[in-house]
Amino acid sequence: MKPMKISEAVVRRLPVYLQVLNDLNMRDVQTVSSQELGNRLDLNPAQIRKDLAYFGDFGRKGIGYDVTYLIEKIRQILKLDQPLNVGLVGAGNLGRALCNYNTYLKDNMKITAVFDVHPSMVGASINGLTVLPMEKLKETIAERNIRIGIITVPATEAQNVADKFSEAGVDGILNFAPTILRVPEHVRIHYANFTTELMSLAYYLDEEGDKENDETVVD
Amino acid sequence: MKPMKISEAVVRRLPVYLQVLNDLNMRDVQTVSSQELGNRLDLNPAQIRKDLAYFGDFGRKGIGYDVTYLIEKIRQILKLDQPLNVGLVGAGNLGRALCNYNTYLKDNMKITAVFDVHPSMVGASINGLTVLPMEKLKETIAERNIRIGIITVPATEAQNVADKFSEAGVDGILNFAPTILRVPEHVRIHYANFTTELMSLAYYLDEEGDKENDETVVD
Repeated sequence: MKPMKISEAVVRRLPVYLQVLNDLNMRDVQTVSSQELGNRLDLNPAQIRKDLAYFGDFGRKGIGYDVTYLIEKIRQILKLDQPLNVGLVGAGNLGRALCNYNTYLKDNMKITAVFDVHPSMVGASINGLTVLPMEKLKETIAERNIRIGIITVPATEAQNVADKFSEAGVDGILNFAPTILRVPEHVRIHYANFTTELMSLAYYLDEEGDKENDETVVD
Repeated sequence: MKPMKISEAVVRRLPVYLQVLNDLNMRDVQTVSSQELGNRLDLNPAQIRKDLAYFGDFGRKGIGYDVTYLIEKIRQILKLDQPLNVGLVGAGNLGRALCNYNTYLKDNMKITAVFDVHPSMVGASINGLTVLPMEKLKETIAERNIRIGIITVPATEAQNVADKFSEAGVDGILNFAPTILRVPEHVRIHYANFTTELMSLAYYLDEEGDKENDETVVD
């Protein structure tokens, strides 16, 4: 399926390309140059050409990329042409917010089960999904062929949930709890950490120079 | 301040190192090797040594890194030793979840103002912050020296909010809405997109091989 080992940086850019391409497609744009993609994404067009060249010879000189063809190719590469079921533990604000993304997940990727560790949350309905108790995790993951687990519980509970997901047989975990987790070798874990996002953004702020002075009024 | 231009990949790893180091520090661990950091983060120790060498000669052969010293250095590099005020637009589930992270933002980085486009949300209290109307955005950002704006509104409203943030003078935007936004040259935008996170995780799933068959039961 995959022609070669692709760097994680490229894999992380592909969904972003897909997002822009879907947007162009919705507006009936038929071809797009690497220059235009670069402008929209604030990326070097040469970088984009290089990224996409990993997957074959998509572009045509002077014309650019065929939008629908490129969408189809990226979807294949990311395996979005196959159903992918996702389970989530933690029906708090963040978990609820993520379930609402199901609307955007037009592809086959979908949150198909929600769990919570607190009995008081069990039975609640979120975007059409009924919150299940943790005791149902293993059987539900098997029954619904859930391959990715999302963790949206507090940091202190996250390792326990990661263990349960791993035991239940998921292949990947997306962890939103602000803590590093240990998982077995065969489980791939990604971190979606709000604070690290903010911190890496903060790094860049001074590059433009402080416009005024640095006095800060704290609330 | 910054010794050289550091790649974005490195900047993105620094907060993750910081998170592990803070965790070690809380458990009174005084030194850590690149090997141990690598084990915890599933990263190549050589990569970690290379990343940290950008910022000076921290490590000592055979002993490792001094945890508190490294924390201090990374905090300086990321400018977490200075106050950084953050504003957020979109007081829905996701916005509320992010405000709750203020507890984790032990550093000087803090969400100090929350806004919403819907009058019905104005006046609500989230984690001690009162939701303000959009008309207050510009003056509040100036008064509280807010330098980063977070967007947690639906995709259709996100460009409008990005424009308002840019006009109000923020230097950076962290966008959670699943859409690409246009901002002026001097504003740095980062995307925290749940669907792209899921997609890049999905890419890796088949590497371990499908354990069973590919039949999927959809809810």
